[in-house]
Formats: sequence, C-alpha cells, structure tokens
Amino acid sequence: MNAPAPSPETPRPAGEFDLIRRHFQRPGQPGAPGVALGIGDDCALLAPRAGHQLAVSTDMLVEGRHFLPDADPAALGHKALAVNLSDLAAMGARPLGFTLALALPDANEAWLAAFASGLFALADAHACPLVGGDTTRGPLNLCITVFGELRPGHALRRDAAQAGDDLYLSGRTGEARLALALLRGEAWALDTLGPLALKTRPELRQRLDRPTPRLALGQALAGLAHAAIDVSDGLAGDLGHILNASHLGAEIRLDALPVAPALQPLPPAQQEDCLLHGGDDYELLFTAAPDKREAIEAAARDSATPVTRIGCLMAPPGLWLVQADGQRRPVAARGFDHFG
Amino acid sequence: MNAPAPSPETPRPAGEFDLIRRHFQRPGQPGAPGVALGIGDDCALLAPRAGHQLAVSTDMLVEGRHFLPDADPAALGHKALAVNLSDLAAMGARPLGFTLALALPDANEAWLAAFASGLFALADAHACPLVGGDTTRGPLNLCITVFGELRPGHALRRDAAQAGDDLYLSGRTGEARLALALLRGEAWALDTLGPLALKTRPELRQRLDRPTPRLALGQALAGLAHAAIDVSDGLAGDLGHILNASHLGAEIRLDALPVAPALQPLPPAQQEDCLLHGGDDYELLFTAAPDKREAIEAAARDSATPVTRIGCLMAPPGLWLVQADGQRRPVAARGFDHFG
Repeated sequence: MNAPAPSPETPRPAGEFDLIRRHFQRPGQPGAPGVALGIGDDCALLAPRAGHQLAVSTDMLVEGRHFLPDADPAALGHKALAVNLSDLAAMGARPLGFTLALALPDANEAWLAAFASGLFALADAHACPLVGGDTTRGPLNLCITVFGELRPGHALRRDAAQAGDDLYLSGRTGEARLALALLRGEAWALDTLGPLALKTRPELRQRLDRPTPRLALGQALAGLAHAAIDVSDGLAGDLGHILNASHLGAEIRLDALPVAPALQPLPPAQQEDCLLHGGDDYELLFTAAPDKREAIEAAARDSATPVTRIGCLMAPPGLWLVQADGQRRPVAARGFDHFG
Repeated sequence: MNAPAPSPETPRPAGEFDLIRRHFQRPGQPGAPGVALGIGDDCALLAPRAGHQLAVSTDMLVEGRHFLPDADPAALGHKALAVNLSDLAAMGARPLGFTLALALPDANEAWLAAFASGLFALADAHACPLVGGDTTRGPLNLCITVFGELRPGHALRRDAAQAGDDLYLSGRTGEARLALALLRGEAWALDTLGPLALKTRPELRQRLDRPTPRLALGQALAGLAHAAIDVSDGLAGDLGHILNASHLGAEIRLDALPVAPALQPLPPAQQEDCLLHGGDDYELLFTAAPDKREAIEAAARDSATPVTRIGCLMAPPGLWLVQADGQRRPVAARGFDHFG
C-alpha cells in the first residue's frame, strides 16, 4: 500500500499476488460445475455430484529430473497437467479441477505467460479449472493435485484384475522413449533413424512433450473394465503394479503390440525395449472380462481412442512375453525408480 | 525383479517404492471415515459425508525459503502439515486427509524417519490420514494438499465480512517472528532479550517450529462467524485480504492485542511490528456480528482456544490502529511477498 505508483515506462517488479492474479486468475471464466469456490480464499470448495466420490492424485515435476532446464514452458504447462489428468483417466474419473503449487527461481513474466497458456489450453479442453495454488521462490518445481469424481464401485483399481481377464492397451507405447533417446543423442536411436529424425517426425517430439490423457476412454471404462493403470514408467513395470496388487500373472503377445512407424526401423531388441520399458507414454493399460469384448470395442469407438487387446491375465504369478513363434520368455517388470 | 537378493550386512539402496512403503504406508492404520481408498493406486478416493462440500488447500515449502537446511526434520514434518491444516481451520472445515509430494536430494533414511514421525503425530492428532503422494529426487521441496469437509453455506470466506462486525484473534501473534529474529541474530531482538533467550524460553522456538492449527475453533465458528483467515504473513497483511475481498475497512485497538510475555520487554515499535507484521503465527483472525458475542465466547470455550476481540470492521476502506490514548493512525497492510 505504501509502494510508489508505477509509471507506464518502468512498471514495478511484479509481486507474488500480482503474478498469481495476472497469470492464473481468470475472472472471465464461468464457474465450473462442481467448483463452489475457486482461487482466492484459504481453501477452494468442491462439490462433487450427489452420490459421487472424489478421486485425488498429485504429481511433482522437478527441473533436471522430469524436464530439461530449457524445456518449452508451454509444453511444460501442458505436460504437468496431462500427467495428473492421466491418473484420473486411469481411475475412470471425470475431472473437476486442480491446484498448482509452483516454485520459481525468479518472477519471469514471459516464462509464466507461456507456461500458463499451455496449462490452460489443456485444462479448458477437459473443463478442469484451476481452483487454488501456491507460488514461492525456489528451484523450479511444479506440484499439481487434480480432483475428479466418479460413482462408488466404478473406480478402475489396480487390485481389481481377475484371472482370465483380457489385457488391453490404448494407443501405443515407445515413441516418447525414442524421442528422448534422440534428444539425448543416444547412439542406438541416432544410428537407425539419423540425426534429423526429430525434425522429420514432429509427432515423436509431440508424444514426449504433449502426452494426451485418455480421459474419455477412462470414463467409458468405469464400471466396465476391472483394473487399469496409466503407463508412465513403462508398460511392463506398470503392468507389474496391477499384477502385484491383484496377485496375478500375465502374458503379453509381442506381435499384438502396436508399433509406431518411427519404431519400425529399430533392431528388434531396441524396439522391444521401447515398447515394454519406454515410459512417459500416458496410455491406459487395463483388464476386462472376455465377455466384455464388444463393450470394450464400443467404449474405444465412443471415446475415439484406439484400443488393442495385447494379452491376458492368469493365476500363476509372473510376466511373460509370447513371441510370434510361440516361445514364452519372462519379462522383468522393471520401471523407472527415482532413487534406484 | 532381477536385482540380486540383499544380504543382511549390505542392504541394497532403498528404491523409491521401498522408501514410500517404509515411511509413508501404514498398513496397521484403520481406514479413516471419508477415505474410500488410500495410498497405492493412481488416485485416492475420498467420500465426504452426504450434503457436504470438499475444502482443498495446497502449500509448498522450499528449503532456504520456508525452513533452514539444518531444520529439525520432525519439526518440519509437523509444520508442513500444520500450515495446510491451518487453511482448513480458517475455512471452518473438518480434515479428511492429505497428499504429500516430496522432492529429496537423496534417500536419507534417518531424515525420512524423523520427518514422518513429526508429520504423522500431527496427522493422527487430527484424524487426517495421508491418502496419496509422489516422491522424486530434487532440491528439498515439500508440497502438501489437504482435504476437509464442511456444510454448504458454512464456509468462513474472506469476502463474507460485514460492516459493524467485531474482529477477533485466536491466541496471540508475534512470538514466531521474535524466535526467527533470535535465530537469525537480529540485533533488536538480541539486545533486548539476550543471547540465551531461545534456550530460556523454549515456547518461543515451539511457536516458530510447531504451530498449532486452530481446527477445533474453526469448526466451532463455521456457520457462526462471517469471515476468517489464518495469520501466516502477519496480522495486518492477512486482515488486508479480508478487507479487500469484503470491500471494507477496519480498526484494531492496540491495547486489546494480547502480548506474549517474551514480547513485553521489547521497545514499543518492535513489539508492534511483531504483533502486526510478524507472520508464521497460524492463528485465526475472524469477524462476527456483535449479537454473536456470547456464541463466540462459547465457541472459544468449547474448543479450548483463547480468543480476543481486537477491533471492528467499518464501511470506509483502510486499516487503522487505535492507540491507548485514542489516537488513530493508518497501518500498512503489508505482508510477506515471496517475489517482492
């Protein structure tokens, strides 16, 4: 209140509250259904529809760990929210809103504007408003918590797979891993695809930077599929979480796995590694009873999401890969471990 | 799955999932009411009671900004949750659960164990279970999102103050600021209280390190008081948020402000600065109609929380301090700005 009035030539440095208002409060937005009170008080107030539960997930993204220091801020805004929405999708929930806590080394206006544009484009596409947050100075760190609603008993839980279930995958895996290898200059990727691969195949970079959360599919599967998880640490590793929680084993048919065009020139071992252990895919991996095949096809069609049946679940523990020649071999359910 | 079996002498380094399980999953805990599914799936599932809204708040704590690198991890665990529960208290909500996202420079077991002990002691005291989270490697950063429930229309909103309302404060302000000054060796504090003050007055350090969220009072005020906020950035600055949101002004009677014993030896200017601009107090500042004085007293008594009437709200904007001699002077509503 005692600060000198800013002049048009030399705007005073933006304070925390100014920054938040300028980039993250959007007074022109109509109130979202399910949000009784948004940004600006001690808490936001959410009102799920009567008879619905609230699904909650939180993810933290750290510079140097989850993204490079020179990451495009608009893509980062997209991805930070996308990975959280993907958790809602894997539960079968409909998005209600999200909170954002942001540590920034300095109040960089251009960075914030770009970050907010990427963030809100995805939020608007899924009617998922920002309802609260926190901003502080510190090493760049993004923490998003996302809220969704679903009917009790309809959640796609990891521990709900049944022996004999079909195993399904949305979209395809491996492109994000390949894009990361090309960015990092890993020889196995550069040798096969050449140094210009990221330029000539912009869809590869897109898969790494702007994953698509499979929300429509997840909601279509709620109450229909048994178990689901989103593939963030690699297909095999994330399937391992379902198998552990459900006390089951599984078989994946290698020739059933969809292979993106960019992965087709890779030698078989590298291709398989991308498909099974790539990570950052944000596809849905789910199980359903064999008598639900038509309903699953309809859910895929209605949500305009490609879905492939890639294997099945079995009572004996373990994860097996069935090759085109019929041979079975065990697969390590290894995933990415931040402290491994 | 392919890692060598650990030997008792050389345990293998704890991986992310091990760490989370060891310190943050507590299988012995009974299921909390309101939590349909806790840690371990893509999302947690919360089920507020029928006819209740969900209150949500998020806070991020960064090393070097909100706590010192050598901070006691148990106290840090307490404080990280306390500042979030304080936001629920300021809304009048009852805690349901919280998520924790944690970036750690390394997997330090002793630090994690102490941190978890402080965190869970406070969580258990308020029946507020950990329902989900995320752990990653990075500069130390804690992001907690807390969930509570309350009846629609009962929330203590910042924009709900009325002209003519009484202004109340729980507990007292300034001790956390004084403790911080002594820790930092600020001359004005050391000169008056001496270098041993933190040793001879352990309650001062306690106020800074282990604030008490005023949850019982907040719930007793829901539907009774008008506006409320928790005092985190200083009494005057946080009152400013109520005044801005409610389009009102206020008067504070200086001699009505409770003064802690440790603050009494301070020169008047420093004492006033601690009381009005100290920060880190986590007391509730709230307004209520004058005809509710007996009910407010009962709420304070029932929640075993000291409450003092310190002023009133008025239609003309501005924040005024009324001195013991009757003189009025304006107070800057300045608070702590992380990017100021």
